Amino acid sequence: MRTKVAIIGAGPAGLLLGRLLDMAGIETVILERRSRDYVLGRIRAGVLEQGTVELLDKAGVGGRLHADGLVHDGVEFCFDGDRHRFDFHALIGRTVTVYGQTEVTRDLMEARDASGATTIYGAENVSLHDFDGDRPKVRYVKGGVEHELACDFIAGCDGYHGVARASVPEEAIRTFERVYPFGWLGILVDRPPVAEELIYAHHERGFALCSMRSHTRSRYYVQVPADERVEEWSDDRFWDELRRRLDEKTANNLVTGPSIEKSIAPLRSFVAEPLRFGWLFLAGDAAHIVPPTGAKGLNLAASDVCALAEAFIEFYAERSSAGIDGYSARVLSRIWKAERFSWWMTSILHTFPGTDSFSRRIQRAEFDYLRSSDAAARSLAENYTGLPI
Amino acid sequence: MRTKVAIIGAGPAGLLLGRLLDMAGIETVILERRSRDYVLGRIRAGVLEQGTVELLDKAGVGGRLHADGLVHDGVEFCFDGDRHRFDFHALIGRTVTVYGQTEVTRDLMEARDASGATTIYGAENVSLHDFDGDRPKVRYVKGGVEHELACDFIAGCDGYHGVARASVPEEAIRTFERVYPFGWLGILVDRPPVAEELIYAHHERGFALCSMRSHTRSRYYVQVPADERVEEWSDDRFWDELRRRLDEKTANNLVTGPSIEKSIAPLRSFVAEPLRFGWLFLAGDAAHIVPPTGAKGLNLAASDVCALAEAFIEFYAERSSAGIDGYSARVLSRIWKAERFSWWMTSILHTFPGTDSFSRRIQRAEFDYLRSSDAAARSLAENYTGLPI
Repeated sequence: MRTKVAIIGAGPAGLLLGRLLDMAGIETVILERRSRDYVLGRIRAGVLEQGTVELLDKAGVGGRLHADGLVHDGVEFCFDGDRHRFDFHALIGRTVTVYGQTEVTRDLMEARDASGATTIYGAENVSLHDFDGDRPKVRYVKGGVEHELACDFIAGCDGYHGVARASVPEEAIRTFERVYPFGWLGILVDRPPVAEELIYAHHERGFALCSMRSHTRSRYYVQVPADERVEEWSDDRFWDELRRRLDEKTANNLVTGPSIEKSIAPLRSFVAEPLRFGWLFLAGDAAHIVPPTGAKGLNLAASDVCALAEAFIEFYAERSSAGIDGYSARVLSRIWKAERFSWWMTSILHTFPGTDSFSRRIQRAEFDYLRSSDAAARSLAENYTGLPI
Repeated sequence: MRTKVAIIGAGPAGLLLGRLLDMAGIETVILERRSRDYVLGRIRAGVLEQGTVELLDKAGVGGRLHADGLVHDGVEFCFDGDRHRFDFHALIGRTVTVYGQTEVTRDLMEARDASGATTIYGAENVSLHDFDGDRPKVRYVKGGVEHELACDFIAGCDGYHGVARASVPEEAIRTFERVYPFGWLGILVDRPPVAEELIYAHHERGFALCSMRSHTRSRYYVQVPADERVEEWSDDRFWDELRRRLDEKTANNLVTGPSIEKSIAPLRSFVAEPLRFGWLFLAGDAAHIVPPTGAKGLNLAASDVCALAEAFIEFYAERSSAGIDGYSARVLSRIWKAERFSWWMTSILHTFPGTDSFSRRIQRAEFDYLRSSDAAARSLAENYTGLPI
């Protein structure tokens, strides 16, 4: 079998890349280790930057997103009980849209189905070959039979634990990492959210976040130690802890109920450099991880893929390698700015074990400065709603 | 002897407070442990925020400042050789003025001499009494004789090591501190500065700063380990190290010469809370220390003293204690914002021993974001030229 671009991974990054290339008449094959249902079963946050929404519109998959997504003009910060709303739309005329990553994936899958492009689920033992030579190819096993997919390019969209980045010789890649000493314990509950917009809460007991999936389904998080076990947290314990970290009014307005999902996610920052190795390109979580604070993960994947699609389209349309040659530097510049923002939001909103009282006061000063300064609030707004792609 | 406000310390904070009160007809006595010449011999940086310049104008001591001070519209950052100029005037219409702290002190001393107000130099064994009771007083020894100064208020403007803060019972005060693992090795040289504006340089070998006192006198700094000895640094070694940390063009344009002063200053952040204890008030370095990055020390002292003078004037004019009751919270709000800014500038511009590669990339991302974002550049500009007093 032969294609132009072999895409590893059928998450939102791989599917969006496939979609953008498909619309440009560039043939792709997507190889996914898991089943379609498994991919759709992964629960992920979904705060879409305005640029991501525009990109999904351009990809022709914005219909359900605009029907069901919740447009948010701003967010609230709550610092030791003091609340302040940052109105992004008033500050810079931009918004974000709450729409689950799973739903983005589903929309992209359906568009791919309709286009007839090939997606191979359950592709096992995927291995990448000759991406540094003339004839890149991907081998995989499906139904017990080994297959080979010859291609011009390989796009590694298979996440942090995927095979694509792992296929690069160690000496050709540099990685940068920060592991935070805490995680987010999150619950999903079929109750209306406590507020129309997200509330990011800093409290001496730890960070908390009031988020939602829809008008009737809420998602709440509390910071817990990195080694915490989810079994230690009954629903009641969760609600009690959440209430303690919020201002009194919000705590009193919480509509609680039985959790339909409860899990702990670790927090990590990670970047690989470069993102091109011969004819292999990394995009999305295969290239970088951000802590969830600020919700940049899916949005960064989208901007990577936007740049990568442009590069491939330029290559086939104009036989120019300028786009593919510039891909790594171009996306890394935006990636590092998003890493900086995610690190900064994480740093000011969480409590750090063993931190000194000076650092606590600096966190408070960041909040006090942010709510007193138009320039600082605009900076927050442009980062949260998304820097230019 | 009796006065209304006993001011401890004849540095710029104490002298400016005395001047503002004198202009309002409120009698003060300043007690200074050192001699007048000693005070004038202390070399300190002098980048005055626009608000500080306006305050000195209001105090009637802006004449020489406007004649000799250098108005700077911006500063330059140089990151691993990449330079970017932040034009504060273009960004937010504000500027800073380079004018030595020693000169500010001299101008204030001369104004005080002309007014006939009392300053007692060489006041030894200063001790503060009954500031929590009805009859505050200050005792001191001068010429071998003990004196007592009765007063309504005591203003502690006697610096970090002074007696004022040390007179407060330990349990009544909270302190916040950060000691940085490096210092600034600075030299003063009678040569024209390499550039018209300050250049803040970040380099993997460490921070460097190109500054000046006048068109013919330059001040340069390089970051050194906290335990470095100044004796290890010949002028030649200093110039070589400075050149390595600058971009090539700046390095080549350096006009070197023999140093007329060379010293190492440690870097520390420090804040005391609260700043009022009965009839005793702390202002300036007695209340807080900032690292020199961003040049906030003298400016914070000026804004403290501005608020304290207003509070005393309100008390005597209207018999209202609202100003003095609100002093501590009012100035601490601005102090913490300046502490945050000084900490942030220090954090992004210096190299930290043992830091990981992720942190280095975050520093670079801060620079790249700053130079790409109008909002971020405005935030830098408003902090550097001074938040509202």
